Amino acid sequence: MQEVRVGLLGFGTIGAGVVRVFQHNAPVMSDRLGATLKLVRIADLDITTDRGVEVEPGLLTTDADQVLTAPEVDVVIELVGGYEPARSFVLKAIEHGKHVVTANKALLAKYGDEILAAASKKGVEVMFEASVGGGIPILSAIKENLCVNRFRSIFGILNGTCNYILSRMTEEGAAFATVLRDAQQQGYAEADPTFDIEGVDTAHKLAILLTLCFGTQVDLEQIHLEGISQISAVDIQFARQFGYKIKLLAIGKEVDGEIEARVHPTMIPQNAPLADVDGVFNAVRLVGDFVGPVMLYGQGAGRDATASAVMGDVMAIARNLLKNAVGRTPARAHQEWAISRRPIRAMHEIVSRYYLRFTTVDRPGVVAQIARVLGNFGIGISSMMQPEGRHVDTVAIVIMTHEAREADIRSALAEIDLLEVVQEQSHFIRIENSIE
Amino acid sequence: MQEVRVGLLGFGTIGAGVVRVFQHNAPVMSDRLGATLKLVRIADLDITTDRGVEVEPGLLTTDADQVLTAPEVDVVIELVGGYEPARSFVLKAIEHGKHVVTANKALLAKYGDEILAAASKKGVEVMFEASVGGGIPILSAIKENLCVNRFRSIFGILNGTCNYILSRMTEEGAAFATVLRDAQQQGYAEADPTFDIEGVDTAHKLAILLTLCFGTQVDLEQIHLEGISQISAVDIQFARQFGYKIKLLAIGKEVDGEIEARVHPTMIPQNAPLADVDGVFNAVRLVGDFVGPVMLYGQGAGRDATASAVMGDVMAIARNLLKNAVGRTPARAHQEWAISRRPIRAMHEIVSRYYLRFTTVDRPGVVAQIARVLGNFGIGISSMMQPEGRHVDTVAIVIMTHEAREADIRSALAEIDLLEVVQEQSHFIRIENSIE
Repeated sequence: MQEVRVGLLGFGTIGAGVVRVFQHNAPVMSDRLGATLKLVRIADLDITTDRGVEVEPGLLTTDADQVLTAPEVDVVIELVGGYEPARSFVLKAIEHGKHVVTANKALLAKYGDEILAAASKKGVEVMFEASVGGGIPILSAIKENLCVNRFRSIFGILNGTCNYILSRMTEEGAAFATVLRDAQQQGYAEADPTFDIEGVDTAHKLAILLTLCFGTQVDLEQIHLEGISQISAVDIQFARQFGYKIKLLAIGKEVDGEIEARVHPTMIPQNAPLADVDGVFNAVRLVGDFVGPVMLYGQGAGRDATASAVMGDVMAIARNLLKNAVGRTPARAHQEWAISRRPIRAMHEIVSRYYLRFTTVDRPGVVAQIARVLGNFGIGISSMMQPEGRHVDTVAIVIMTHEAREADIRSALAEIDLLEVVQEQSHFIRIENSIE
Repeated sequence: MQEVRVGLLGFGTIGAGVVRVFQHNAPVMSDRLGATLKLVRIADLDITTDRGVEVEPGLLTTDADQVLTAPEVDVVIELVGGYEPARSFVLKAIEHGKHVVTANKALLAKYGDEILAAASKKGVEVMFEASVGGGIPILSAIKENLCVNRFRSIFGILNGTCNYILSRMTEEGAAFATVLRDAQQQGYAEADPTFDIEGVDTAHKLAILLTLCFGTQVDLEQIHLEGISQISAVDIQFARQFGYKIKLLAIGKEVDGEIEARVHPTMIPQNAPLADVDGVFNAVRLVGDFVGPVMLYGQGAGRDATASAVMGDVMAIARNLLKNAVGRTPARAHQEWAISRRPIRAMHEIVSRYYLRFTTVDRPGVVAQIARVLGNFGIGISSMMQPEGRHVDTVAIVIMTHEAREADIRSALAEIDLLEVVQEQSHFIRIENSIE
């Protein structure tokens, strides 16, 4: 039986998962491939720590070059993470004619163009299913069977830490800081959680999805970014009363020839399938002009689920190698000449529904003052709630708007915040009804 | 730009959808393929009916051979449906070296082996994504990115008619016959709905999924089949009170080296993602040993969604043709030599939880009599309900069991039905808790 030889760079958690696939499912892979996948080398600076998997000592090396440049390696799996030395490693592997599989979304979002140009020049494959949505085969679906569709929109729940925190805030009515601290203690959040909770990780993944769905290059700086640290228990509670849940969504849409690219907390209807995606699960919903709405759901992280996606890519490359069909499907779904830099819609131009929360003095006529300002900006009110005040002096007023331009919302809130009756800066959260 | 030429056999609803993809998304397809897909001929016995799409008259023919044997056709799309002449058409196309895309689950479930053997001998591709789950790219996911997994189980909601009827029975508390009649009037159910409501269509799809997931050939007769016509509004109401919904599920599992293959109404927890799949939507949930649970959700039928899946297959074949890589991925996920005839578990050996409903006289001691029989067969009771009787003489007793062997359940029910206090034949519905 023919053999395709794999070198692994980075022997951390996901690396151990990859080794487990080789150890447990070699017959499964050869039954499906008609050839043997062989793990020939593992490089990591630390080769003494116990990874929970037995490995022949001869496989291990601290010298990355023994994977990157060795003639007996066909495919390199990069699981080093971060920008450097991952970028240099990947470029070196490509230079030596290796095909590359990576789970590194940060690397791809920042250096994707450089890496894919080098790969294209050298005639090797770069695949990265595991970089978005863990085990969920979303990139493969976009590149393969859904590829005759013009995509209209994509919504993703792509960060397990955020989703875990929001799920627990929703279930327990707890405050953000409390749940975050607990999540850190339980290992569901990093010691420095900024990258996750401020939406940076989600933006990296959205950048990749936008290129695959819309054929556009997107810089990270072009993605509007709001994290979940400003979400309060009271917003979650009001959302529920209106029939909504709050999720951190990655949103991509094509509107009038422009691309919306944004990551922010979003209210979605409680009965929408995405609303049930709780805890460490991820999901992506996309709408194609022919297929309509499609949702994929699964584990967004974790050793084994991520290893499944990594090894799925290795199998795809192996199939191409065995048939001499490298380049069969372009890495970013489109031929390179069909990827351009499409205009990104400015945030103040987007149209959305909005949840607005005001903190005001408890006095007759306050609602009228707020409503008048909204009316002046052409913002229609869909529903309103003023619960019994818990404090002596201030009350909360919550308004759900009809569709409005973000610029008008921001102008109206700025004017409302100047009203003498308003006690705190007003809050807003965007609402998505289109995903029911 | 290179060209791949497509011939369409069958110009009904889905055929019109396929033509629409060519008319609306030709640039989308060439941006992704790097070549042109061209529709060169459409054959149908009826070429005069208005299909809602404009077609050059020169494209149309009533002579199937002009698609099946014409040298200018590379790929044949078979949308004739049914067993014959679809089978003969497909075999003739293969014989003439055409690659084939079909949406015909009945054909595949019955003649799949013959067709794939012919294709393999001739060295052509046969693909059939649209045969299961409409637009949902489930077969592609199993064959491609998830292919390093050993699958543990698969659950599918695969028939829109059944799902629509059960959804409406659940929402409205209406009786099966009433909803069916209404569904027929609205076009959601056929005049003769047997094929759908008795689960035959779902079984065709399950047979295909079982081969792809478990590498086993399955005859339709080996699939245990129960439709939804025996489900009553009262069962749906009791299910809700216990926190469950009733869905017609296709179920495949590997248990102790044997394959479970069954289609039947099933109670699933209300909070399971599959429970939210309502109306004409389909969903498939599978569990792989590495990826864990994955769910795919989308439109299970309809002109455009099905056309998306059909054309996704055409694109896959075109990619292989352009790279000379025919046979890159086996049609049934496994190399032909890895597909065997694995033992199917007999229904009386399966283990499940059960919902039991008894209709008895309203007299002290009845519950004790029933419980004693269940106990004699080693069947544990998880919960029980005896609502206030609506009729003077009879009451309903509902019991949810712990896991039990189907043989024991059937023996116990047979014995209980002989009790003098029991007024009607007892009912049972299987419960799946593993899909939470």
